[in-house]
Parts: sequence; C-alpha cells; structure tokens
Amino acid sequence: LRRGYPEAVLCDAKTPDQVRRIAAECRERATGAVLFTRADEERAAAALAELPDARHLLEADLVVWPPHPPAPSGGLVVVLSAGTSDLPVAREAEVTARYLGRRTELVVDVGVAGLHRVLGHLELLRTARAVVVAAGMDGALPSVVAGLVPSPVVAVPTSVGYGASLGGIAALLTMLNSCAPGVAVVNIDNGYGAGHLAAQIAAPTSQPDA
Amino acid sequence: LRRGYPEAVLCDAKTPDQVRRIAAECRERATGAVLFTRADEERAAAALAELPDARHLLEADLVVWPPHPPAPSGGLVVVLSAGTSDLPVAREAEVTARYLGRRTELVVDVGVAGLHRVLGHLELLRTARAVVVAAGMDGALPSVVAGLVPSPVVAVPTSVGYGASLGGIAALLTMLNSCAPGVAVVNIDNGYGAGHLAAQIAAPTSQPDA
Amino acid sequence: LRRGYPEAVLCDAKTPDQVRRIAAECRERATGAVLFTRADEERAAAALAELPDARHLLEADLVVWPPHPPAPSGGLVVVLSAGTSDLPVAREAEVTARYLGRRTELVVDVGVAGLHRVLGHLELLRTARAVVVAAGMDGALPSVVAGLVPSPVVAVPTSVGYGASLGGIAALLTMLNSCAPGVAVVNIDNGYGAGHLAAQIAAPTSQPDA
Amino acid sequence: LRRGYPEAVLCDAKTPDQVRRIAAECRERATGAVLFTRADEERAAAALAELPDARHLLEADLVVWPPHPPAPSGGLVVVLSAGTSDLPVAREAEVTARYLGRRTELVVDVGVAGLHRVLGHLELLRTARAVVVAAGMDGALPSVVAGLVPSPVVAVPTSVGYGASLGGIAALLTMLNSCAPGVAVVNIDNGYGAGHLAAQIAAPTSQPDA
Amino acid sequence: LRRGYPEAVLCDAKTPDQVRRIAAECRERATGAVLFTRADEERAAAALAELPDARHLLEADLVVWPPHPPAPSGGLVVVLSAGTSDLPVAREAEVTARYLGRRTELVVDVGVAGLHRVLGHLELLRTARAVVVAAGMDGALPSVVAGLVPSPVVAVPTSVGYGASLGGIAALLTMLNSCAPGVAVVNIDNGYGAGHLAAQIAAPTSQPDA
Amino acid sequence: LRRGYPEAVLCDAKTPDQVRRIAAECRERATGAVLFTRADEERAAAALAELPDARHLLEADLVVWPPHPPAPSGGLVVVLSAGTSDLPVAREAEVTARYLGRRTELVVDVGVAGLHRVLGHLELLRTARAVVVAAGMDGALPSVVAGLVPSPVVAVPTSVGYGASLGGIAALLTMLNSCAPGVAVVNIDNGYGAGHLAAQIAAPTSQPDA
Amino acid sequence: LRRGYPEAVLCDAKTPDQVRRIAAECRERATGAVLFTRADEERAAAALAELPDARHLLEADLVVWPPHPPAPSGGLVVVLSAGTSDLPVAREAEVTARYLGRRTELVVDVGVAGLHRVLGHLELLRTARAVVVAAGMDGALPSVVAGLVPSPVVAVPTSVGYGASLGGIAALLTMLNSCAPGVAVVNIDNGYGAGHLAAQIAAPTSQPDA
Amino acid sequence: LRRGYPEAVLCDAKTPDQVRRIAAECRERATGAVLFTRADEERAAAALAELPDARHLLEADLVVWPPHPPAPSGGLVVVLSAGTSDLPVAREAEVTARYLGRRTELVVDVGVAGLHRVLGHLELLRTARAVVVAAGMDGALPSVVAGLVPSPVVAVPTSVGYGASLGGIAALLTMLNSCAPGVAVVNIDNGYGAGHLAAQIAAPTSQPDA
Ligand SMILES: Nc1ncnc2c1ncn2[C@@H]1O[C@H](COP(=O)(O)O)[C@@H](O)[C@H]1O
Ligand SMILES: Nc1ncnc2c1ncn2[C@@H]1O[C@H](COP(=O)(O)O)[C@@H](O)[C@H]1O
Ligand SMILES: Nc1ncnc2c1ncn2[C@@H]1O[C@H](COP(=O)(O)O)[C@@H](O)[C@H]1O
Ligand SMILES: Nc1ncnc2c1ncn2[C@@H]1O[C@H](COP(=O)(O)O)[C@@H](O)[C@H]1O
Ligand SMILES: [Mg+2]
Ligand SMILES: [Mg+2]
Ligand SMILES: [Mg+2]
Ligand SMILES: [Mg+2]
Ligand SMILES: [Mg+2]
Ligand SMILES: [Mg+2]
Ligand SMILES: [Mg+2]
Ligand SMILES: [Mg+2]
Repeated sequence: LRRGYPEAVLCDAKTPDQVRRIAAECRERATGAVLFTRADEERAAAALAELPDARHLLEADLVVWPPHPPAPSGGLVVVLSAGTSDLPVAREAEVTARYLGRRTELVVDVGVAGLHRVLGHLELLRTARAVVVAAGMDGALPSVVAGLVPSPVVAVPTSVGYGASLGGIAALLTMLNSCAPGVAVVNIDNGYGAGHLAAQIAAPTSQPDA
Repeated sequence: LRRGYPEAVLCDAKTPDQVRRIAAECRERATGAVLFTRADEERAAAALAELPDARHLLEADLVVWPPHPPAPSGGLVVVLSAGTSDLPVAREAEVTARYLGRRTELVVDVGVAGLHRVLGHLELLRTARAVVVAAGMDGALPSVVAGLVPSPVVAVPTSVGYGASLGGIAALLTMLNSCAPGVAVVNIDNGYGAGHLAAQIAAPTSQPDA
Repeated sequence: LRRGYPEAVLCDAKTPDQVRRIAAECRERATGAVLFTRADEERAAAALAELPDARHLLEADLVVWPPHPPAPSGGLVVVLSAGTSDLPVAREAEVTARYLGRRTELVVDVGVAGLHRVLGHLELLRTARAVVVAAGMDGALPSVVAGLVPSPVVAVPTSVGYGASLGGIAALLTMLNSCAPGVAVVNIDNGYGAGHLAAQIAAPTSQPDA
Repeated sequence: LRRGYPEAVLCDAKTPDQVRRIAAECRERATGAVLFTRADEERAAAALAELPDARHLLEADLVVWPPHPPAPSGGLVVVLSAGTSDLPVAREAEVTARYLGRRTELVVDVGVAGLHRVLGHLELLRTARAVVVAAGMDGALPSVVAGLVPSPVVAVPTSVGYGASLGGIAALLTMLNSCAPGVAVVNIDNGYGAGHLAAQIAAPTSQPDA
Repeated sequence: LRRGYPEAVLCDAKTPDQVRRIAAECRERATGAVLFTRADEERAAAALAELPDARHLLEADLVVWPPHPPAPSGGLVVVLSAGTSDLPVAREAEVTARYLGRRTELVVDVGVAGLHRVLGHLELLRTARAVVVAAGMDGALPSVVAGLVPSPVVAVPTSVGYGASLGGIAALLTMLNSCAPGVAVVNIDNGYGAGHLAAQIAAPTSQPDA
Repeated sequence: LRRGYPEAVLCDAKTPDQVRRIAAECRERATGAVLFTRADEERAAAALAELPDARHLLEADLVVWPPHPPAPSGGLVVVLSAGTSDLPVAREAEVTARYLGRRTELVVDVGVAGLHRVLGHLELLRTARAVVVAAGMDGALPSVVAGLVPSPVVAVPTSVGYGASLGGIAALLTMLNSCAPGVAVVNIDNGYGAGHLAAQIAAPTSQPDA
Repeated sequence: LRRGYPEAVLCDAKTPDQVRRIAAECRERATGAVLFTRADEERAAAALAELPDARHLLEADLVVWPPHPPAPSGGLVVVLSAGTSDLPVAREAEVTARYLGRRTELVVDVGVAGLHRVLGHLELLRTARAVVVAAGMDGALPSVVAGLVPSPVVAVPTSVGYGASLGGIAALLTMLNSCAPGVAVVNIDNGYGAGHLAAQIAAPTSQPDA
Repeated sequence: LRRGYPEAVLCDAKTPDQVRRIAAECRERATGAVLFTRADEERAAAALAELPDARHLLEADLVVWPPHPPAPSGGLVVVLSAGTSDLPVAREAEVTARYLGRRTELVVDVGVAGLHRVLGHLELLRTARAVVVAAGMDGALPSVVAGLVPSPVVAVPTSVGYGASLGGIAALLTMLNSCAPGVAVVNIDNGYGAGHLAAQIAAPTSQPDA
C-alpha cells in the first residue's frame, strides 16, 4: 500500500506479458488492493490469469483486486459527466474513488449548454465533500460548478472533441483558467487520478482540527 | 465606404505621422464615416489634428468621424463583459456597433462564477438580434449564453488572465469548442471586429425573406 | 427544441449503442426535429434502427429526422467550398442550414488561386444574407469574400492539407486574422456549427427593427 | 461571501480607479472579508484609500480586509517553496489559506536537487491536511512530495526559469503528468488559487462521514 | 563578398561596440559592399563612425556601404506591401534587392480585402522576374498574387497583427500552405532575406540555358 | 495551363471517384499537361482509367499526362536528398521540375554529419540555377548549401524523424532561420511545391535584363 | 567507422528493400561494426538476409553486426528506467553503449514516486562514469539523480504517458529545465543517441590530462 | 560543495537583497567556491558587498568567489560561438568550465554558412575532451561539429534570432534532432549548464577503466 491507498498499475504502455508478471507479484506478495488502469481486453485477461478472483469493470477499463470495494468511510464524492461521450472517464473516476473507500454518486449529461440540468442537481452537489467534473470540448462545466458549491472541484478534461480541441488541451486550459477558485486540475482523460484525488480530499480526517 | 460600412484604420502598428496622413486623405476625399481603432493618445491627436471635429472615445481607444453615430436601424445589439477587466474590449465592440448604426446595450460583470447575474439579464438578452460576449481567462461565458438565447453570439476572447491563459489563447480555444452551437468567434481583443460582425448580423434586411 | 432549433447529436465519440438509445428517446419523447452529425455507417444504422423514417445524407455524414426539411423562411445562405477536398464540410453546412429552415446554394472549387472563379459568382454572393466559406490549406478565401459582400461570412477551416497546415490550425489562424471585418469563425471541420450559425444569422426577424 | 469564503478581487488587469470603486462598494455593502490579489503599490493604495483599516501584505502583493485572519479551524496547510525565487507565489498561497481560516506553515528552498532537505521536513509534511508546493523550472517537487504524504498536494507551477521553461508551461506540464497520484494542479503563479483550494481541502467537515 | 553578394551584418543582437569593430574591419579589409541590417539609431551611428561615407536608409533600418547601389542588371523585382503597417519590412526588401543590383518597384496598400487594388497592378506584376509580398495578419496576399503571375513569389510574413496572429506565425503558416504553387517563404519580418532571395532569382544568368 | 505551367491535382484528400472525374475532364477539355500528386495505388488507377496513356511514377507518387516531359529549357535544377529516408520527397521535386521543362540532377545521402559528401558535389552544385534540398531531422543541410552556392536554395523539410522532430516542424523552423541568406522554404514534404518553385526560378527568361 | 564508432542505420523511415541494400554494402565494404536501429521484424529480416551472422536484439529493436560487442574499455555506464514502460528505450541505450565498448548495468522501475528505490542504488550510481536515465510522464527522475551523483546524467525522455504528456514533450521540457546541473538531454525515445553519448563520455581518455 | 563542484546561485529571479543574504551565508559558512550566475550590475554589487574579494566577470554576467579558478585538471574544453551575438552565452560556458577546473579555449564566429572557418579549427577541436557549441537561429553548428570530432558535443541553443526562431526554440529543436549522434543538449541560453556539463565530461577519472 502506497501511503495507505491501493497501488495502481497503468497498463496501456505495458505488454500483456509485463501485466501478467506484475499481477503474479501482487498475488505472491499479497500486497493488499491493486487497480489495473487502462486495461484493454488483452491486458485485463493477463491480469485475471494470475488473479482469477479479480473483477473486470469494463465500462471503466479497470481491473480491481480484491473484487469488492472496502466499506465506505469519509465524505461523499459526486462525479459529473458533462456529456455522454465523457462517460468512460467519469466512470473511471467514480470506480476509483469507490475502491479507495468513498461513497460515490454519478450524474450524467449536465453540460453548460443546458444550465437547468446542472441546477437541478444542486442539492446533491452541496452535500459532496469533493466533486469530480469530467468535460471535453469547451471544458466550461467546472467553472460553473465551482461557483455553486463550497467543496473542491476536481476537474478532469477529456479528449472528446475535434479540431481546435487539440485532443483535450482546450478543455485543460479552460479548467486551469477557471474564473472561480476551488478547481483542482488533473491530466486529460485521467479519470483514475481524479478519483484518487477526490478520495483523498473526502478522506476521514485522522488529525484533529485546529 | 467599404460595402456600405465605415472604413476603419488600425492605428497601433502605424506611426502617428502615417495616421495623420490617412486622416488628411479622409478629409480631402470626404469618404464618409471612418473609425480609427486602437488609437493611443499620440495617434488620436494625429487624427484629430486633421479632423478637428472627430470625436475621441477614450474608454474604447477609438476616434470616430463624423462625431455622431447615424440614426439606429435594424435590431438590438447587446454586449456582455464577463469581468471588469474585459471592459475596454466590450466598449470597443459596443461603440463600433453603434457607429455602424445599431441600438446597443452594455452589461458588465456577469461571469459564469456567478450564474444568477447572467440569468438576471435573460429578458434583455432574448430581445437582442446579436449578442457580443467579451471574456478572458476560461472564456466560458459564450457557451452559457448561447444555450440561453436564440440569436447568434459573437464571442470575443480577451487577453485578460496570466500563465496558462496564454495571452487569450485559452479563452479563444474554449469559444471555438463551445458545446452550444451559434457561437461566432473573432480574434483575441478584437472588439472592433466583434462590434462590426454584430452590426452586420443585426442589420435591417434589404433582401426579402424566402 | 433548443431555443427553437432542432437538437443535434454528435455521434463520433459515442458508441453505436449510445446513439441507438438516444434515437429511441427522440422517438418516444417526440421532441421534434433532430440531426445526428458525424454519423459513420455503423452509427447511422443505429439511429435508423430506432427512427426508420429518418434520412441518411451520406455525403454529409448526417442522419436527419424527420426526413424532410421545413419550408424555407428568412434569407438565402450561400455555401462556398474552396476546393473539391473541402466538400464534405461544405455539404454538412449546407444541409444543416436547409434543415434549420433556410434556402441554400452550394458553390464548389472557387479557391483564391483562381480569382476569376470567385468573381464569377459575385452576383449570387451579394444576394445572400449569410455566406459560409469552407477552406483548408491557407484558408485565405474568407478574407477575399468578406471584402466583396455586405453580409456576414461564416468561415469554417477544414483539416485539408498536410505538414504545416497542422490539421487545420493554419487555416483557422488565417481566418481569425482576416484583414477584412465581418468574418465569424467556427471550429475546424465544424460544418454543422457553420450551417447552424448561418441559419441563425439569416433567420426571419421576429423582433421589430429599431 | 461566495460559498462561505471571502471574495477576491484580481487587481492586475484593473485600473487603480476601478480598484478604488470596488473597495468603496465593499465598505458600503459591508460584505465581509475581501482579498485584493496581485495588487502593486498603486492599486494597493487605491484599495487602502477606501478601506483604511485594510492590511497590505507586501511580500504577497495582497491587501486583506478586515486586517486580521479569522481564528483557525480545520486542518494544517503546509506550503513548500522549491527555491528562493518561488517565494512570492508560496507566500500568496500561505496568506490566502490563513485568511480563509487555516493554520499554515511555510518551508523554503527544498528543491529536488537536494533531497535531504525535503526529507528533513517529512514529519511536518505528514501532519498536513493539504500541502501546497510551489516550484518553477522542472517542477519536479510535487511528484516527489506526493509520493511521501497521504494528503492531497496542491501543485502551483511558477514562471521562474528561462528558455524552454516557457514561462512556467514546462513546470505546469510536469505537474499534470505526475507519476504519483494525488496532485491537484492550478494555473502558473496562481498562489491565491492554490491557497484557496488548500483551505477548502483542509476545511472542517460540516457533513458527517459515511 | 559571399558568393558574389555583399556581406550583411545583423545588428540587433550586437552591441554598438561590436558593430563599430565590424565596420572598422570592413574599411580596413576593403571587402566590397556591406549592409548593416536592423540598425537602430545607436548602431547606425556606430557603423557611420567608422565608415563615414556609408548611407543610412532610415525607413528600412539599413546602413549601406558604399553609399550607392551598383548599376542594375538582371530582371525587375516588384515588392508589394499588403498594408501600410507592413511598409518597413517591404522597404527593407526593396532596398536590399536594389543594393544587390536589381531594378525595383514598390507598391503599397494592396491587401486582399480590396482586390481591385491588386488587380490594378497586374501589368506591372507580370513584367517582374521576382515578386516580393510582405503581409501580416491573415497573410493571404501571396496566394492571390501567385495565382496571377508566372514568376516566383517571395512571401515574407510580418509581425503586424495581435492576438491569434501570434507575432506573425499565423501569416507564416498561411504562406507555407499556399494553395497556389510558386511561393517561397522566408522568416517573419525578414525583409533582408526576402530582398536577397529575390535578387538571386532575378539575377542575370551566367550559365547558358539547357 | 495555369500561368504557363501544367495543372496539378492534389489527390490525397480526394476520393478515387473524384480523381477519376477530374481526369475525365482533363481528357475532354484537352487542357494540356497535368500532374496528379500524392496519388496512391487506388487514386493512380482512377486517373489511368480515364487517361490510359498517362504515366505512373511510383517512386514519387505522381501520375503525369502526357507521359513524357517537354524538351528541357532554362537552367539546371539540382536536387539533394540529405538521407535515404528523404528520397520520396526529393524524387517528387525532381520529377516535377523535369515535367515543368527543366534539366535535373539528383544527389542522394549528403547529410551534414558527413560534410565531405556535400563538398564532393560542389562543382555540380555551382552550375545549378536552382538547388532543391530535402532534409528531415535537424534540417541543417540547406544552411550549409546556401553558404556554398550563388543560386537560390529551395528548402523542403521532410517529416522524417521522431519525437521532437514534431512531424517536420523542427526541420521547417531550422530552414526558416537559416543563418545563410538565399533559402526559399516550402511546406513539409511538399516535393511538388519545391520542384515547381525551382522550375520557375530556373525558367528561361522571357523579359530582357535591366 | 565514423570517428571511431560503429555506423548506425535508422531503419524506421526506410523500406525493407533500402535496409537490405545498405546491409549488403556493409558486408561488401567490410566497414566494421554497424547497428540497425528501430528495426521491426520486417526490416530486421532484411538486414539478416544480407548479414546472416548479425544478431537481432528483439527487446531493443536493434540488429548488430558483428554479433558480439567488443571487449569493454573506459568507465561504467549505468542505465536507469523510471518505469516498466520505459524499458524498451532503456534497453536500446544499454545495448548501444555495450556495443560501443562500455561495461553497462541496467536498473528498472526506480521512479521518483518511490524515492527509496532510487536511494537504494546510490552506491552503484556513484561508481558510474555516465548515467543514462529514461523516464516518461513527468520526467522528474534525472533532476533527482543529477543531485546525487558526480558524473554526467544523460536524460532521455520517453513518449510514455497520455494527454498533456504530449508524446514526450512534457518529459523533455522537464529535463531541459532540470534544477540540478549536469543533465545532457537527447531526443524523445532516442535510446540509441543516449547510449552513444554515454559511451563517448565514459570512453577511455586518449589525450593526457591537463 | 555539491558533489564536488562549486555551488551556483541563479540571480535573475532573486531580489538584490536575497542575493546579498546568500552571499553573506557563503562567507560565514566558508563553503568553498560559489558562482553567482546571470548577475546584472545591481545583483553583482549585492554579492560583492558581502564578498569583497569576489570577481565580477562582466562579459559573462558572473560573479565568482574565490576570485581565481583552481589549477586545471582533466581534459581540454573547447567552446565555439557560431556568431558574434552568441558570445555572452559562450563566455558563460567557458568561464564556468574554467572555474570548475578545466583548461578552456574559445573560438568565435564559426557559423555553418562559412564552413571553411569551422574546418580551420579542426585540429584544436580534435584535441578537446568536450566541445561546447553555442548557436542561435538555425542551430545547425552542433550537427556539423559532432560529425567531425570523437568527443561529446554539448549544444547550447541561444535566443539569438527573431520571428520563427521562437526565442531559441528553433535552435533547440535542431539540436535535439541532430543527424549526428554525440550531441548533449541543454536549455536555451544556459551557458552555465553547458560549461558545467562539459567540465564533468572532461573531469579527471577517479574510477579505474574497465
Ligand atoms: N490511469 C493512470 N493515469 C495516470 N497515472 C496512473 C494511472 N494508473 C496508474 N498510474 C500511476 O502511474 C504510476 C506508474 O505506474 P507503473 O508504470 O505501473 O509502475 C503508478 O504508481 C500510478 O500512480
Ligand atoms: N482593431 C482592429 N482589429 C482588427 N482589424 C481591424 C481593426 N481596425 C481595423 N481593422 C481592419 O484592418 C484593415 C487594415 O487596416 P489598415 O492597415 O488601416 O489599412 C482595415 O480595413 C480594417 O478592416
Ligand atoms: N502535392 C501538393 N502539395 C501542395 N499543393 C499541391 C500539391 N499538388 C497540388 N497542389 C496544389 O493544390 C491546388 C489545389 O488542388 P485541387 O484541390 O486539386 O484543386 C492545386 O492547384 C495545386 O497548385
Ligand atoms: N535510433 C536513432 N535515433 C536517432 N538517430 C539515429 C538513430 N539511428 C541512427 N541514427 C543516426 O541517423 C543518421 C542517419 O541515418 P541514415 O538515414 O541511416 O543514414 C545516422 O548517421 C545515425 O547517426
Ligand atoms: Mg448533450
Ligand atoms: Mg468578479
Ligand atoms: Mg482546384
Ligand atoms: Mg537553491
Ligand atoms: Mg488598408
Ligand atoms: Mg546516412
Ligand atoms: Mg511503478
Ligand atoms: Mg557572421
């Protein structure tokens, strides 16, 4: 366990064989929980070959081991997906936060072009201890949400878009320049990182308050 | 008159002497209206030396000749300034549209971090035939406005911001990637171009409808 | 209907399954017109499975429902394609404007390297209430056209080109820096957005003039 | 109060006169605490002219009103400055967190080229509920710190450097690509945003745990 | 003499003292013609202190020695300036070509937004053996000219513009992507290089034809 | 014939069907010579289906019609290929210049890392009226060649390289910043454009000298 | 032999046929050692067809001829791989240094997020005469290592990562901005170049010391 | 002493007061040698106020303490300056290497446009154990030199140039893409880093050879 959280193995630049060897090591060292992120069919199969009781969460390209999340502790993590196309990233964030021990809620298709949909979820948003917002194209949603809630907003730009979206750079820049404070930015399509950060923010506090 | 609209002289890359000579030509050829844009003190003085009845609109860095706008025709142009710092660009747009013959309204400090302020102007926005939105930093306001009004939104990114705002490039990209259709983008800080385009959109129609 | 215009569904970052579910919702809610944009064979089939009377416009990668455009109203939209290679984008713009209720004309292969071809269409161009110009490579055509017509020019850069065209960024920058005012820029290859904006500009005016 | 936190006024793109008018409004509306950020001599004087009991924190270019921070609540915020040149940004973050109600500690000159210095502060770092790391040039410090502590690391890239540091873009990219999870990135030189985010993360929890 | 052409000394990154020493060497070695380019007041004075019979061409920031151009040989070089603001670069090109031994003509203010002005010079353009075109902002003029003349067009982008002109990069990219062949591109604001290249193209042929 | 030179049809962004229709038009209008550039197997076949006596030059991805180049006139064009990998671009340039009526010579594998190879061809280089240099990676060869010959150097950057070669942008920038004057730059991989420009430069002069 | 080192042939932009012809030449001219870099299956086979006693080092995409490295001379080269995904680049560096005549050691998976692993190899690192560090994502490892060892660190950024890693540009910039001196940067994924440089640095000194 | 080399203090982003305090600490702790780099008049004076026997090397913007370099050891470092304008960076490299204990030679104005000048120094270059090459604009010189000498070439791009030189980025990319192996790249204008690296490469070997 790194600093108390499950280890993660980024699979996409590894060969299936490398993934298998790492999975075998996990089993042998019995290290505690591990997440295999960005695992396509082939790499997921490699992990499952060594860790047969692991669970493959297809919609998030994740393999998790052990297969069930821990009992939830700390505060609520709400994950927003601006469009349907941002869903895979939003789900990766949600699953990660859940397997790191938080309660989670996922809300889909609440882009800024339809403000009433965002505003319709205000009550839920205000009970969150951390909000993750996945958005591509203009990446405008985190600015709007950060203006509405007191908790930190973890903004994860997605590569959804084309042309001048520059593979997510446009959304990334929008988020870094948010006119509302309280926006924590992570890398493009980094649902895992967003979920991890949200889980840390919403963690139960071990140290006493000031 | 170019295509029926006043000529414009972009002053900032010209010497005061060049500005003066162009102003003299305008007087001699009696060409009709002319706008001297991005005219600092020195260049404005150069224009006024040859066209003493011209008017210097300080807050928009414009010198206009003749000094009064034409009687308004066509539809209403509403100009929004996301923040106080975007005001010079917003004013350049408003004055340009007015001197090209439109009725105009200017609304200030309606950034997306305070949605209620935008929503408070909804009625006015919906009577506009063109809306100009000036915004820097995240440049998120045009997406929100375009989702609320039926008329075209002319989005003018400003260079307000720092770091990853890249001198307005971040806001420019946001606007080009707007998740709401109906957003017409112009160059960074191009208040003149935004006002001109809005005036064309809101022009009285000379051709009959289909 | 968003603000009076048909809804659009951007298909390329959605799975066929997501497209099908959205199409089913459209049918059930009977929402009014809808455009499925950037729909390849597979996604078009998914939409048609739920909306069998929809129409697949292959040359523009669009599925439209209902299958016929509304009776035209407002002014004429003229669409120019600089080269043969820009045609798919130009057609997407034209079809969109037509299905949003405008009369449209399409003119092909009028690049600036052969000025006489542009000049040969001057009369038609001057009757338009909005002109859409699709151009890749140097993206120079909108500047030339905007210098010739009184109506707004909607400039849509295409990704046609190679090397320093940077996937359309070169043409995009050209258009944003047009030395003629009156150019409204949209995202690279965004034929849908260009057609939508042109349709809004050329819409019949509901509000009285000033 | 926005969402329970003091309002902030970004001064650098405003005229001294605009700053003065905003300060007067604050006094009249008695809105609660306000921070004037990026306030140079002239703009600080403008704020103080209307709010004479405000306090000018020179080393952080901040004017705060009322002059004293609230009694601290929530967890500890530790601010690290990689080099001496990053100090102004680090101080802006520290002062912001303090005036938003947190206990703070500032540690200076702990760059990765001298690991023993970082490691020497490990105990303090592990008691923090949020760590802010300001670093320019290679921006490598947040990755190292995030690998050592369980709490979130707010990474603020600075524009310290030259050549290929690209005004802080190099450090920004490093931080977005951190090989350790738990890094929340804000804009270049955005000490205010970093301090605000850290204060939110370390806030006393009002909602009960799961 | 480098390859038969005068030597050139780029002054802007040299100290006045370095310029003076180079000028002294020229006098002593009696090397033949030399051009001091980008010479501001101070550096021009430094050159003249050692070469008192040199000539300072203020409008092109050039000091030339000996003071008179050679008798013209080869073909005609026509230099076009798209706008008034591009004049300094256009003049640098013209003077360079003249001092390298060509006949030259300079035509000003022939931007693509006013096509009739370009077309009005067609006869002159068609007698040129090389045409230099200086243009900023959209940089569209070389494409138009190259479509009209049989000789090579040397395109020199200028840094005239703002925002998305990116200091001349936009115009540079336009020129590199010209849809008309026959465009030779040089660096931004490189009037000297453009004039040199044009002079080489229009040089009298020493080698016999095929 | 455009301005006296064969027409060219850029095939890569056209469908085979579009290519075929253009080829048919060429045959019917009997327009004179035409080059189909960037023609892969499929597009070349489409052109040949309508113009059976055309010639497919595989090594340069060109289809030429009529199949034989005109009798050479004007000066010699020498084409250099820095590495073996730059050959396709170098050949496209050579064939283009030949079919536009020039004598040509091709020299391969003369990169700057082996200076003696460049120097070994000096005599040939000095008889050229135009030199084309194709180079990828560092793109340093044109600077070296331009320092050795009196004629213009047409520099064509290639996309050969990886990583920080940025698809040819690195070589392009090198060439634009050549420390030797006399370098005419064209787009990345634009062998056709380089050959066309060289053919124009080396054309027989119709206008008398000054 | 170039300057005493084996020749290298970069295969990836060459056709298999070109590779075969070069291999044949090597055999015929008996030039001494040669390395075929970035040789995929097909290109490796082409080289082996002409040089059957050559050796294909699959894990480094290298074909070496003759098949055995020379007897080692000079100092030790230590190669570090930050993550498992950086291994192919690290191996290319190691093999290259070995075939250029150096003793080598390879250490894997020592990223900065787990400092203890780096520190665990300190003794080995301090005996090296050159250290190669391959790292992707944040590219932070070379800064840390250069702060710990007296010998030069050759930093090779890898393209491992996604989104804002920009294909290795992020890691490249980090390394160029290292806050520790003594870092020599090579191109992204250039394991060959890194190994070559390290071999030169660690070469036995032929010239006497000062 | 860091790893056996003098400490360096980068002055440009520090206040004179910060520089003075650091200088005082050096004196008090008697740490051994120190270099104050990028020290303008004011900051140099601040250092000298505390370390009166330090030496200010104006031409390299360095303050060194103690004032004399150590007795030279190891191999020769040759520093090349491509143009006169690159001299400050070349001198910073040379002085740094000298104060780190190496013999040094400086050769000026040997750009690739005049190859004979480079070739005239070949004998000296081949006795160097490390060669530093400072070059701006096209940055082509290191490729040429690396093809001529057996020792490593430390390439330092300078910001000399304009337009598409992008403040030294063009030269930096050229060097990273050198077609000759053996080029170690450092940051733009980083003469200090280049000299430090060269001094390490040319250091006397303490470890025995293999
Ligand atoms: N999807 C992901 N995106 C970004 N970082 C990740 C991801 N998955 C794992 N990581 C991090 O990448 C580090 C390197 O992974 P590895 O190469 O598997 O050792 C792990 O320690 C994780 O913190
Ligand atoms: N502020 C401005 N921003 C962008 N374009 C402008 C501006 N002012 C004038 N222009 C346009 O720039 C063109 C060139 O101006 P000039 O160089 O004055 O001939 C004019 O015809 C205007 O259309
Ligand atoms: N390989 C090429 N690279 C760049 N431009 C080309 C190329 N081939 C043709 N062209 C130019 O592109 C223009 C547009 O071609 P088209 O789309 O075929 O009408 C032609 O007029 C040619 O001048
Ligand atoms: N993997 C590689 N990366 C970078 N440069 C290389 C690589 N392999 C070979 N080279 C260099 O590229 C030069 C050109 O190779 P070639 O095109 O094979 O003549 C050779 O002289 C090598 O120095
Ligand atoms: Mg939607
Ligand atoms: Mg505000
Ligand atoms: Mg055409
Ligand atoms: Mg320090
Ligand atoms: Mg003009
Ligand atoms: Mg070779
Ligand atoms: Mg790992
Ligand atoms: Mg020189």
